[in-house]
Order: sequence, then C-alpha cells, then structure tokens
Amino acid sequence: MRGSSTLGLSRFLTVIVASLLGAASGRAAPAQATPPASDTPAEVVRRLMHEELARGEAYSMLQELCTEAPHRLSGSEGAANAEAWAVRRMRAAGLQNVRLEECTVPRWVRGTVARLGVVAPAEARRTPLPVLALGGSIATPPGGLRGRVVVVRTWAELSARAEEARGAILLLDRPMDPAEPDPFEAYGKAVDQRGRGAIEGAKVGAKAVLVRSMTLRLDDVPHTGAMHYDDEVARIPAAAISTAGAERLGALVRANGAVEVELELECKELPDVVAHNVVGELLGRERPGEFVVVGGHLDAWDVGEGAHDDGAGCVQAIEALRLVRAAGPVPRRSLRCVLWMNEENGLRGARAYRTAHAAELDRHVLTIESDRGGFAPRGFGTNASGAAWDELVRIAALLDPWGAGTLEHGGGGADTSPLEAAGCNVMELRPDAARYFDYHHCARDTVDQVHPRELALGAGALASLAWCVAELPDALPRPAPAAATPPASK
Amino acid sequence: MRGSSTLGLSRFLTVIVASLLGAASGRAAPAQATPPASDTPAEVVRRLMHEELARGEAYSMLQELCTEAPHRLSGSEGAANAEAWAVRRMRAAGLQNVRLEECTVPRWVRGTVARLGVVAPAEARRTPLPVLALGGSIATPPGGLRGRVVVVRTWAELSARAEEARGAILLLDRPMDPAEPDPFEAYGKAVDQRGRGAIEGAKVGAKAVLVRSMTLRLDDVPHTGAMHYDDEVARIPAAAISTAGAERLGALVRANGAVEVELELECKELPDVVAHNVVGELLGRERPGEFVVVGGHLDAWDVGEGAHDDGAGCVQAIEALRLVRAAGPVPRRSLRCVLWMNEENGLRGARAYRTAHAAELDRHVLTIESDRGGFAPRGFGTNASGAAWDELVRIAALLDPWGAGTLEHGGGGADTSPLEAAGCNVMELRPDAARYFDYHHCARDTVDQVHPRELALGAGALASLAWCVAELPDALPRPAPAAATPPASK
Repeated sequence: MRGSSTLGLSRFLTVIVASLLGAASGRAAPAQATPPASDTPAEVVRRLMHEELARGEAYSMLQELCTEAPHRLSGSEGAANAEAWAVRRMRAAGLQNVRLEECTVPRWVRGTVARLGVVAPAEARRTPLPVLALGGSIATPPGGLRGRVVVVRTWAELSARAEEARGAILLLDRPMDPAEPDPFEAYGKAVDQRGRGAIEGAKVGAKAVLVRSMTLRLDDVPHTGAMHYDDEVARIPAAAISTAGAERLGALVRANGAVEVELELECKELPDVVAHNVVGELLGRERPGEFVVVGGHLDAWDVGEGAHDDGAGCVQAIEALRLVRAAGPVPRRSLRCVLWMNEENGLRGARAYRTAHAAELDRHVLTIESDRGGFAPRGFGTNASGAAWDELVRIAALLDPWGAGTLEHGGGGADTSPLEAAGCNVMELRPDAARYFDYHHCARDTVDQVHPRELALGAGALASLAWCVAELPDALPRPAPAAATPPASK
Repeated sequence: MRGSSTLGLSRFLTVIVASLLGAASGRAAPAQATPPASDTPAEVVRRLMHEELARGEAYSMLQELCTEAPHRLSGSEGAANAEAWAVRRMRAAGLQNVRLEECTVPRWVRGTVARLGVVAPAEARRTPLPVLALGGSIATPPGGLRGRVVVVRTWAELSARAEEARGAILLLDRPMDPAEPDPFEAYGKAVDQRGRGAIEGAKVGAKAVLVRSMTLRLDDVPHTGAMHYDDEVARIPAAAISTAGAERLGALVRANGAVEVELELECKELPDVVAHNVVGELLGRERPGEFVVVGGHLDAWDVGEGAHDDGAGCVQAIEALRLVRAAGPVPRRSLRCVLWMNEENGLRGARAYRTAHAAELDRHVLTIESDRGGFAPRGFGTNASGAAWDELVRIAALLDPWGAGTLEHGGGGADTSPLEAAGCNVMELRPDAARYFDYHHCARDTVDQVHPRELALGAGALASLAWCVAELPDALPRPAPAAATPPASK
C-alpha cells in the first residue's frame, strides 16, 4: 500500500534544514518563521501522539457532547445545543475565528409511536418485531395500517413478484454480507434497500416497506438511516426492522404462507429551518490563507447518542487543533476545524460550506473527515494522486508505530464530497471497521461504547497528518481529474 | 514493514504452475498430489477467509469452552475439563491423531478470601481497595496481617527508602505508561513489579506487597498474574490492587502520612500434578512428517473466563485446521494444532512439548501462537530472517484485504520460546492491542467481550498463513542465530 520513493520527504527535510541554516547564519527571520531544530515531521508526530495518549481530551469532550446533546438530528433543539457546545468547546480549546456558518436544513421528527405486530396467524401475535421509522418517512394513518407480508431480497425478485406485492407490506430482507472483507462494502451492497425501498415498493403498489437493519449482528436493535421518495411515485411509510425481527418474520411467512401485520409510525416532515456549520481555526505562521481542514459532522440520528457517528469525528477534529496548540509548533498553513451540519439527511451543511468558501477552495490544500467511528485508526483513504499521493504515503508512514500508517486510494466522507467534486484533495481517517455497523444509527451508539485509547489514537493521527501537510514547503498538487471520482469502495 | 522483492512468491507460483502443466501433459500424479488450478495461495486465502467470515465456528467454540471450563488454571478440575473439551472438539472438527501429551504442572489455589482494608486513620476504613492474590503467592496468617503503607514506584526509590519499608506493606505503584505506542511495551516496563515485587520487598524487610494492576484503565477490577519467589529470600504475600484502589491508597498516604492496612489472603501451593498438552493434526499430502504448528494455551487464570487469554487463541488454532479441512485443499505439509498447558504459571507444557518432540524439531517449519487476545488481527511478528522473512512478508501480504497483512520483527509467544531457543522459526498473531490489557488476567475477560467478527478474522488469518507456509515447495530456512533472540519488544 505504501510507495517506496522517499524523494518528497527528503525534499521537505532539506528545505527545513536549509531554512534553519539560513536562520543560524544570521539572516533575519520573522517571529515563529521556522520551527526549532527538533521539529522534524517525525519528531512533531511523536510529540503529538505522546501528548494525546498521555493527556488527551477527546474522550472527556465526547462524554460532554453525548451528555449535553445526545439527540441532534438537523433542525432539532438537540442540534442547536450541539452547535452551542461546539462554539464553547472550540473557544475553550483556544481556537481562533470561532463562528457559526448558516445553512438551511430539513426537519424531520420521529414522534413517539413506532409499532409493528403480527395480526394473523393469531398464535404469532406476541412475536417481537422491533422497528424504527426510517429518516424521512411519512407516518402511517393513526392506528396503523395492515397488510400481508411479502419477503423479497432483490429488485429483480420484487419485479417478478409484483402482482403478489400489490397491497402488501414488503420486507426487504437482503442481509449485509458477512463474507465481504470490508464491512463498508457490505453496507454499500445492501443499503439501496433502505434508500429506495419505499420508491420501488410504491411502484408495485405496496402499502409500506420494512427494511432489514444494516448491521452484521443478529439482534433486536433496529438501525435507522435516510430514505428517499420520488416526486413521481406515491409515498409509502418505511421502517427499519431489527435483524432478529426480520428473521422471525421471514420464518413465520415460510411456515404459514399468509402473515398479516400492522405497522404504525407517527413521524413527519416539518418546514426547513436555519442551522449552522461550526468553524474554528489555528492560523498558520506563514500562509494563514491556505488551509488544511479537519472535520466531522455535528448532526446525528435521534437514537443512541451519536457517539461513534459522528461525535467521535467532531471531538477528534477539535482535539486535533487543541493538540497542535498544546504540543505544536503552529504549522506553516492554517488548520481549520469544520463541524458540518446535516450529513445524515441532506448534506446541506457540506454544500453550504462549499458555496460560502468558493473563493478559497483553491487554497484548501487538503480536507480530512473522520466519520467512520472512534475505533483504532488503521490509516487514511484519499483521492490524491501523483506527487500528492506519494507525499501523503510518506507522511502517513510516520504513523506506523501507532498502527495508523496505511494509505489507501478512495475516500473522503460524505461531507467532503462537494469539495472533491470541486477538484480539492480530500481524505478520510480509516479506523478498524469490524465493529462499526454494530453501532451505526441505532440505540447502541453511546459514549460508553467508544474506547478512550482508540479515540485518542485517532485524534492524534488526525492532528499528525494535518500538521505534516500544513507544514509542507509546497502545497499538495490537486488530484488528477480522473481521480476526482471516488472508487466504488466508499 | 513489507519487503519489496517478489522473487519467493513467483518461484512458489512457478512451481505450482509447472506441476499443474506436468499433470495436464499426462504424467502420473498421486492422489491429491497437486491442488487444482484455482488453488493459488491468493485464491486459497480468499476462500479460507470467505468461509470463516460466512460460516466460521470460532466464536461458538469459544462460548462452549468458556461455559464448560471458565476457570482452568493448571492442575485444577477446570483445566482437566478444558483438556477433555479440546479432545472432543478436535475430534468433532475431523482432526487426526488427536491426543493428550503429558506434562507435570504446579498447582496453586486461590482460596476464597482476598481482603484489604484501611485500619487507620479510622475515618478511611470504608475506602474500597479491591485485591486479588497474585498467582504463586503464599497466604497471610489467618485473620490477616497489618502494616503501615509505603508507596514506591521504582526499585531505586525502594532502595533509598529501605529503612522506612522495613515492617511495612509496600504499594508498588508504577503505572503502565499510556504514552507508549505499544501497550505490550508499557506492560513490559511495569510488570517487573508483579514478577519480583515480593522478592525486592522481602529484601528490605517488608511484610507484604501490593502491586498496582497491569492495565491502562482506571477502574476497580484487580488483575492477577504470576509472581516469583527466590529461595534465598523470605517469602511474603503479594496481591494485585485495582488501579483506582491504588490511586485511593496513594492519596490517603499523601494526605495522612501514616496509613495502616490489613491484608488477608488464603491462597496456597499444593504438590505438582500431571496435566496435558492437547494435540491434533491434519496430515500433509506430500510431507506429512514436516509440520506447521498453530496453537494457543489452554490454561487460564482463575478469574473471568480466559476468553481473550487465551481461549481465543485455542479456538482459533482448532478452527484453523477445521477451516482448511472444510475449504482446503490439504496442504503439502502437516498442520498441527497444539494447545499448551501451563503458560500462565510455569511454561511446563511448552517445555514438555519441546522435550517430547526433540527428534522432529528440525521438521517444525514454523510454529505460530495466538496469545494476544481475540481482537481484529493486524498481522504477525516473527523471528524469521533472511529468505524466510522475505517469504513470510509476501505470504502475509495476501492478508492485506482483511487488514492483517503486516509482518513485524520479533515475536513468538511464551509457549514458542523453547522452540525458538532450539533454533526454530516461530511467529505470533498480532491483533490490535488497544483493548488487550482491559481484560488481561481479570474478571472482565469473558466471552461476551470478544467480538465474533474480530475473532473470525484472526482464525482465518492464522489458517491462511499456516496453509501458505505448509504449501511452500521448499521449507522455510531456519532463522539466523543472531535472530534467535527475540528483541525487547516482547
């Protein structure tokens, strides 16, 4: 995975040494113009990682966020609390230019009722079928709606059984494939059921859709997430059912043929409201107008506490700047922390950020998102190519002693996708993925399920990568146009 | 970490292709003499990993072991139950030559009393100070013993305060350093307190020693582990105290100067008893007298369930052979599964294995132990050098898609150390280490704390590495003498 040439890093070191020699030979140097002799990239990385592991604040920050604003879906009071927390926390960490940047977001509310039960056969009425409305779903009529259950796994199967599906409640039951090496790939191959299940269901005349939860675990915790409607197609309610519930319902249908269930959801969409991205900076000592951005998304689903998704990324991004300030030196370019709003159900914050910062996108040297949970970091993924890729391979390798030195092609989180489309270098932190979908979008995503050392390793890795890129003598070249489209792996 | 030459693997593939061409051109081939065309190492690894992730049995095996024999310290009834379980499980998995191989083991029993309480100052009597006897410790007199507490962090400090320590109960309070990149390094720099604390304490006339638990967490779960006496020095009782308990006791001493505690332990050493290593094989199709050994240790401390330490390694080793049998083909050389007895407090099983197999050690091509917990595998560590190292680098890299392809110098678990000393190639599976010392030797080490996918990834990685080495046309060269001593990192 790693390149073999060391040219870029050698050049980097040569420039640092040369400028130190320059300073030593009596040339005037501006204040903070060059870091002291011990501040080689390797030494700064070692110092940042040491400081984070010994005295990091990422975990205590995450406890604070998850206590003050556990539910922070866009447009909610919790999201507003999270914005206020982030502003306060960035200021406490000594960040500069801390501010709110406006965006308009959808406001969907879950309500209090989510209920699925077997009506017939009567002897199966006590079968536990835990459900959660999918984000964006309409409600059922009050009191619920009833229908026969039809279980399908593929769109082709749905098409072939369209007649049978008319008037039915569909169970979309294709599991994430445990044999996929990368759980994110398995997710990518199953999540179309959640995204367009209601559209495909309505096209064949179904009354509602139940979607098997997106997780590799067999349990009774339903996982929510965004779903979509199509203006050309009728809107029908859509809910996530726990994987164990889906297994039970499927077994009932296989055993009985006709199974009738009743589904009630109370959710609704309200008018859009104004919300904000939260931004703070650590100004560069030589080129404050050039930026290395680190970020996560501040909104989270309204179940659990959004601890892994994406409280972890938010606190790692704030912590990265705090850490550089505490154990730095301040790098050549500015570091900017951006906590995007509305990643989960609209991406409005990320789009507003691109619009608001259109004039300085060519000075976004690299934008790194952490949005894959607070697990032990393995390395990074990036759309960078050519000389930029080579440079990043060498920088990432400085994190080998902490097991976080791998660089992979592809990547950039959802929030960086507008910047990627605008031709910017983007990157994402890649932690170990084995446990991620145990917690994703469900009630289990709580702060006690985040490991303090793993979260700290990620914060340190993010700070280290950002510092090294912000310190490079020359800005990273932008990605080749062909590399601007991320590969299917994300 | 990875070498760049691909010569060894190319040669390996060339030999396979050549032998396939030979078979295709009509030369007589013995039954099972060559694997079919699709059985390149990369293809077999893919198939083994796929089968393990889709239908692996490692986790259900671990649930079984932890239910049937949760406490299995050498010489105990639980250890005998574990031996019986292992024999049954290896036979059920279709292993050949399943057998018990005798060894003589110490038998230390904890008893039921382990109590530490503040006597003075009186107002601190309710301070919680959870303790566990260290393995091998003698008991206190019935009713306990009392002494002033003296807190020290280093042997130099103990030496300087020897006068004060006479007649006292020592608290050895040097924490594992969270800033160490590798938690095993941090353990290695603190565990001398546990190993020789009683000896050093007795030398200065202390009555007993309390050792701060070997973990990076601050909590109230004491961690036990082996300690030693010296025949030339008086024996005094030794107990582990929880990290939070150590902090409380240290704070009391700082606040009050004189703090008196009472310690009671009931443990004792009984005469040695006969126990067994459990061995099973999958005989190679061409060179059944040459072995690639995979293993773990069957004994475990008598708290928790020994799930990570080392139930995980045991089930991964059995599973590796079951998996090759299920999704093989059978490799050229034999695979042997060895579950060593008495790793925790004597290493008698590992020594007995070396003695019993002395005549075939030169046909031990590689011995791999899994004894670092059932966490997501990162790769392997080995004492192999030269051409063997290069070969192993290329084989390990086949596991990159599952994040387990790193090869590092050093390694081999405790049980492989007698083989390493005898000049054999040894290796250990290296999982992510961030959480290991949360569970090590304490009541928390239960099967619910092992993640099924992480355990399966490790079992698949172990099977894959072992298969590829067992299939090599030429046996791995033995390590250079200089490499036979493991580096300090383990």
